[in-house]
Amino acid sequence: MRVMGIDPGLRNLGWGVIEVEGSRISHVENGVCHGTGTAMADRLLALFDALSAVITRLAPDTAAVEQTFVNKDGAGTLKLGQARGIAMLVPARAGISVGEYAPNTVKKTVVGVGHADKRQIDHMVRLQLPGIEIAGPDAADALAIALCHAHHARAGDRLAQAVAKVRA
Amino acid sequence: MRVMGIDPGLRNLGWGVIEVEGSRISHVENGVCHGTGTAMADRLLALFDALSAVITRLAPDTAAVEQTFVNKDGAGTLKLGQARGIAMLVPARAGISVGEYAPNTVKKTVVGVGHADKRQIDHMVRLQLPGIEIAGPDAADALAIALCHAHHARAGDRLAQAVAKVRA
Repeated sequence: MRVMGIDPGLRNLGWGVIEVEGSRISHVENGVCHGTGTAMADRLLALFDALSAVITRLAPDTAAVEQTFVNKDGAGTLKLGQARGIAMLVPARAGISVGEYAPNTVKKTVVGVGHADKRQIDHMVRLQLPGIEIAGPDAADALAIALCHAHHARAGDRLAQAVAKVRA
Repeated sequence: MRVMGIDPGLRNLGWGVIEVEGSRISHVENGVCHGTGTAMADRLLALFDALSAVITRLAPDTAAVEQTFVNKDGAGTLKLGQARGIAMLVPARAGISVGEYAPNTVKKTVVGVGHADKRQIDHMVRLQLPGIEIAGPDAADALAIALCHAHHARAGDRLAQAVAKVRA
């Protein structure tokens, strides 16, 4: 199963793709899409086109996006929402299921604690995907979201198997 | 010139299209796209597909979206931002310029005052586009945005002509 994590942002939209086979996890690729342009519509279109190209090229089976932290700056939240709309639309258009995780869930799953900082996330991502080059903090966050999604999807599988066993 | 106004919303995304020929303005069509589905990604995809179909069918030359009022509810603003991202992306994908107007600018242009309520907007839209049927308050807002965009585009034209005259 190929899992994509997306960390939405208008300027920098991080993405990371991992391959999950049973308990083995390996890195496929990570990067950052940029919302270039001056007008908002152009920036959103640039994000849409760049992320669409990545999804077409790497063909993930499932994707996950962080339920972005809502800060006190309304205008900033609105802009982030616009980028997040694109981040969720693009995989949905490709027929891929899109999971959502709260930032604390991502941190708790990947680092073990809900209040981990960026350095800890970067460290744990490198531990789980040894030797990789990371395109920046947004790509590291995206890989953490992908790892979180893979973990929860596997837990869901195990649960489904256990239920099937009990019922058999 | 065919002008589209869009009032973004996740549940109800209002749209309205008008035809502008010199000083004559006529109504083309208005309606509401619905973000149906349970998962956020599905709702955004439903909005994207519905709005794309309208733009393909009615082929506006330019579009405008309201710079949505940012309220104090961060989660609501984030959701609205997601819908607004789709509202700006779809015309941009069709190669159409997308204008942005603050709610007060729309009200001031269409009603004459910046603090007009929904009833006044509905009233002035009906006055300027006599005999029309409006698909609901979101479609009325969208028509007001289209009227505002047409007015400012014409003012821009007149200014460009005046500048050309002075320079000639």
